[in-house]
Amino acid sequence: MFKTMNIFRLCTLKHMRLLLLMNTLIFLVLLFTLYISFTHSEKNFNSGNKFDEKQLTLNIIENRLQKLQQALKNRFPSAVDYIDVHVKHDLPTIYAITPTYKRWTQKADLTRLGQTLLHVPNFRWIVVEDSNEKTALVTNFLKFSGLQYTHLNAKTDQNYKLKSTDPNWLLPRGVAQRNKGLTWIRKNLSPHNNGILYFLDDDNTYSLRVFEEMRSTEVASVWPVGLSGGLKFEGPGKCKDGKVLEWYTAWKPERPFPIDMAGFAVNLKLLFKYSEAEYSNDAPRGYLESHFLTGLKLKRHDMEAKADNCSKVLVWHTRTEKPKMKQEEALIRQGKSSNSEMEV
Amino acid sequence: MFKTMNIFRLCTLKHMRLLLLMNTLIFLVLLFTLYISFTHSEKNFNSGNKFDEKQLTLNIIENRLQKLQQALKNRFPSAVDYIDVHVKHDLPTIYAITPTYKRWTQKADLTRLGQTLLHVPNFRWIVVEDSNEKTALVTNFLKFSGLQYTHLNAKTDQNYKLKSTDPNWLLPRGVAQRNKGLTWIRKNLSPHNNGILYFLDDDNTYSLRVFEEMRSTEVASVWPVGLSGGLKFEGPGKCKDGKVLEWYTAWKPERPFPIDMAGFAVNLKLLFKYSEAEYSNDAPRGYLESHFLTGLKLKRHDMEAKADNCSKVLVWHTRTEKPKMKQEEALIRQGKSSNSEMEV
Repeated sequence: MFKTMNIFRLCTLKHMRLLLLMNTLIFLVLLFTLYISFTHSEKNFNSGNKFDEKQLTLNIIENRLQKLQQALKNRFPSAVDYIDVHVKHDLPTIYAITPTYKRWTQKADLTRLGQTLLHVPNFRWIVVEDSNEKTALVTNFLKFSGLQYTHLNAKTDQNYKLKSTDPNWLLPRGVAQRNKGLTWIRKNLSPHNNGILYFLDDDNTYSLRVFEEMRSTEVASVWPVGLSGGLKFEGPGKCKDGKVLEWYTAWKPERPFPIDMAGFAVNLKLLFKYSEAEYSNDAPRGYLESHFLTGLKLKRHDMEAKADNCSKVLVWHTRTEKPKMKQEEALIRQGKSSNSEMEV
Repeated sequence: MFKTMNIFRLCTLKHMRLLLLMNTLIFLVLLFTLYISFTHSEKNFNSGNKFDEKQLTLNIIENRLQKLQQALKNRFPSAVDYIDVHVKHDLPTIYAITPTYKRWTQKADLTRLGQTLLHVPNFRWIVVEDSNEKTALVTNFLKFSGLQYTHLNAKTDQNYKLKSTDPNWLLPRGVAQRNKGLTWIRKNLSPHNNGILYFLDDDNTYSLRVFEEMRSTEVASVWPVGLSGGLKFEGPGKCKDGKVLEWYTAWKPERPFPIDMAGFAVNLKLLFKYSEAEYSNDAPRGYLESHFLTGLKLKRHDMEAKADNCSKVLVWHTRTEKPKMKQEEALIRQGKSSNSEMEV
């Protein structure tokens, strides 16, 4: 700096003028460049006509960002939660509880559901295994799922366990697992958490839109469920201005809530307000959902109607067929079952 | 500018020195700021330790980019192809042919498969309906799927159509639809297209990894399919250095290719080399895949083994259970079926 001062002193007024002019010019050019680059990016963001070049650039950047994000997640798996919690922090988080149990199609069902959930921002998947120990299959599946998750287990009481010959409606299913998930939420979160509670079955079908619908739930919300209750759809049948006018069901219409597990969501605040509400193995057939919702002191008219005033089916009560494993069963009987190292 | 010059003339040498100094200082500060902002972003990109702040920023940018991309796609749906073709142009495109037919679970199955495919870059979904006309359901589903697609239809010849009481193995399924897809590819693409052909069923389960495995197919590739052929898995059973050493099946092991439709992919070049190869309604039971592959002059030893030398199950031959629609069927008999405006 001192040297510069010395040079200044040695200059004549004429030199100085020239220097100052050059300096000012460079300064102006620099400012102009900055201004141009800013307005240019602004403009391209807003213009829709010359979008394809911009789109190409954006896609390439996005691709790089995604790869970087995945690389970071792979290298620091323990920080996945930290990363995800801080993303899009203006959105309430969806906490979805999923009971799951060992069967031939378990990994397939979890895989395709997980790939749907990967699209949902601010989402935590609470997966509860019906088992005495967490299995390696589910542990590894979740670890490499790329999702923000909590892995729990709760074995169903043998008195309430379906036999393989029982029809699936004979006993309520997933009670111990859903309650375990509820306990985790009440222990690890608080009424200050901005969150929504949902119950996801591992073989149902969920469109991405249903998650965005439920995210705005203020107290509790409902929407129709496709292929449920022996009908094309079941649940709210006619809605207006976000309120349910008529319920649609063909079976036990006297139930407090004639809806499927996939057809409602609840704001977390309610879960803390009524901290005893949970599922019960003693609920009569078809009353599992109603028992839980009445435990939260909800009445039919409290429910906020979602899915364009209950005019769209965004979830389907699908079931994955039990695969025919005739050849495998024969091999098992002969003590020659397929390669046990192959996880299916 | 002239005014500035005048001011210069009015200044004393002392004033000029001060001005020049200030000007230089501002200039240096500006340069320094630019330098810092550039090196800072460089550094954070390369460093893995201070990744979370950068990750947060990246996620926010990515979120904005994704919203922009979706907005562009919604506003210019006809340009979706253009946008997607230009993305990641170094990757071969996967052309997947999916036969589909009307049934209660059709939209649910297409929805969850579509949500998986949304993750796959450079992918074109060729959906072929078993119908005389394209249906509104599939048309609208594809339009809003966000995917790059081709929508076709081909009605199965009534002589080859399964009755609802027939077991599903009685006749080959999806022949007319797969052939229609093959014809479309041969008409609309050329041997110069860098692409891979795959056959996707609408109710199978596909992990994202299988698409990345098949993308490097040079001639034709295979991998095991879970829950197929009555076994835990079927297809290549033992592989080394990308070659299949043993095939694993419990049923008709003499078939040229004891594999499921979901277990192989073919480079497009082969499709143009053997331009007559297609599916046949007259193939004996279990020989559908073999008939097509031998039409491409492939032999077992030609097949490239994928999925970590056929040690991983990345696709599952799942089936969606036919839903029990007792109540709906009763309503239909009474001419009072559920709200026909509700698409399920």
